[in-house]
Amino acid sequence: MKRVASADNRAVRLARRLKTKKWRDSLGCYLAEGPKLMAEAIEQGADILFAFFCEGDEGGRLDPELLRLADLAAGSGAEALSVPERVFAGMADTMTHQGAMAVLRKPAEAAMPADGSWLVLDRLSDPGNAGALIRTAAAAGFAGVLAVKGCADLYAPKTVRAAAGALFRARVARAASADEAVGLLLSAGKPIMAADARAPASCYETDLSGDFALVIGSEGNGLDTAFARAGRLLRVPMPGGGESLNVSAAAAAIMFESVRQRLARIEGREQ
Amino acid sequence: MKRVASADNRAVRLARRLKTKKWRDSLGCYLAEGPKLMAEAIEQGADILFAFFCEGDEGGRLDPELLRLADLAAGSGAEALSVPERVFAGMADTMTHQGAMAVLRKPAEAAMPADGSWLVLDRLSDPGNAGALIRTAAAAGFAGVLAVKGCADLYAPKTVRAAAGALFRARVARAASADEAVGLLLSAGKPIMAADARAPASCYETDLSGDFALVIGSEGNGLDTAFARAGRLLRVPMPGGGESLNVSAAAAAIMFESVRQRLARIEGREQ
Repeated sequence: MKRVASADNRAVRLARRLKTKKWRDSLGCYLAEGPKLMAEAIEQGADILFAFFCEGDEGGRLDPELLRLADLAAGSGAEALSVPERVFAGMADTMTHQGAMAVLRKPAEAAMPADGSWLVLDRLSDPGNAGALIRTAAAAGFAGVLAVKGCADLYAPKTVRAAAGALFRARVARAASADEAVGLLLSAGKPIMAADARAPASCYETDLSGDFALVIGSEGNGLDTAFARAGRLLRVPMPGGGESLNVSAAAAAIMFESVRQRLARIEGREQ
Repeated sequence: MKRVASADNRAVRLARRLKTKKWRDSLGCYLAEGPKLMAEAIEQGADILFAFFCEGDEGGRLDPELLRLADLAAGSGAEALSVPERVFAGMADTMTHQGAMAVLRKPAEAAMPADGSWLVLDRLSDPGNAGALIRTAAAAGFAGVLAVKGCADLYAPKTVRAAAGALFRARVARAASADEAVGLLLSAGKPIMAADARAPASCYETDLSGDFALVIGSEGNGLDTAFARAGRLLRVPMPGGGESLNVSAAAAAIMFESVRQRLARIEGREQ
């Protein structure tokens, strides 16, 4: 493994730049911090360019766990680099880093296929919420994520952490506006369902057993009206009171209601 | 409104101390940061001792929004205090504070009533997850939260923020161990349902239409075996793959499945 001692090294400078959206956009790369995320990225076959490891105090040696991870990273085609603590600390986004950080190439933008449900992120500005939603959508078997311009950067370090590896296998498509997103969804034949706490229809009275697009707005700014015009609004019934559900919890309730309806339909067929 | 310029003021020292669990436990108080949370606390009738407001740059004057909030706080019985920026910054938990902070008295420990479902937090160490769960449980109409010793402090600033006001109206009970929690739940007649990703039974095949206790463990450490022995394990089916659901999303799916079953039961009765 190569050792890099200078903060001016080209790969180190690249990693530092990727903390800002501007550089992630123009370089087409992003960061994943921590040994767990790096191991997940390797396992998922994500495109890792550089794998950085922070040296322990004693003469630049690596922790055996990190050393094993470095071998795996190198085996997957990444360039593994060990760096001293002071260099690593300047690259890390978290205050208490865990000694491993990957620079990954963003996957190519995905086209929206005819089958599968999609999660649509509209105006969702909180990167942690965006990551949590991507993770939940992956678990619920959603086929991909459509990010509408203005939503949080899906490749921000906080989003990558909250997605907990789901981003490495997620198909991500993009739309420059809500109108463009509506056009993409309709031409792919996906009924548009938008979560709205004030909608008259409950998600439990709505047929979610087929493929659909679930649009999630922000807690503060709500949804673009283009989605309401082109689709159906639905709410999660809240016996405990109106405004008190976090967007990621509301989306989880709806996504897993669609899982339940699908399973019920399959069982109905089998009987 | 009284002005406090010294960081050695008794109320200011109290607020600073409440950042640590030790002091929250021994003083029976906690912090809520931000104007939105403070307004919520006032509206919910939470017991606010001190309401701090950060002065703007110009000669110690308060922003009109904060001034209005200070009036509301004083009207609810709190002592409203204005403090200079440097004093406020030393009290705030967040890096970018929003100029308002309340010191609240913890509510008395709740007894577990015979009716209503309860959320049980076992070993859940992440304060943000704990707060999100409390918020979701409130929206789903759960009656209260039973915190088992070893779970995150429900009154940590991060938990209070993530609960987004739900903590001010939540009934909170405590158990010194999982065994004590099981005893409390069984004597209150609550069937114990514990979320476990590896459980054979799906939450969709389980009767959740009545009152029950939903036990949530941590992502890393799982559940205390006492809950598995005394109750039923259930999982959220994940078509997209096993380990990829955050505890708060899994709990949201189960809690809102119970909402759905309850609504279906009521509708069935009405027909």
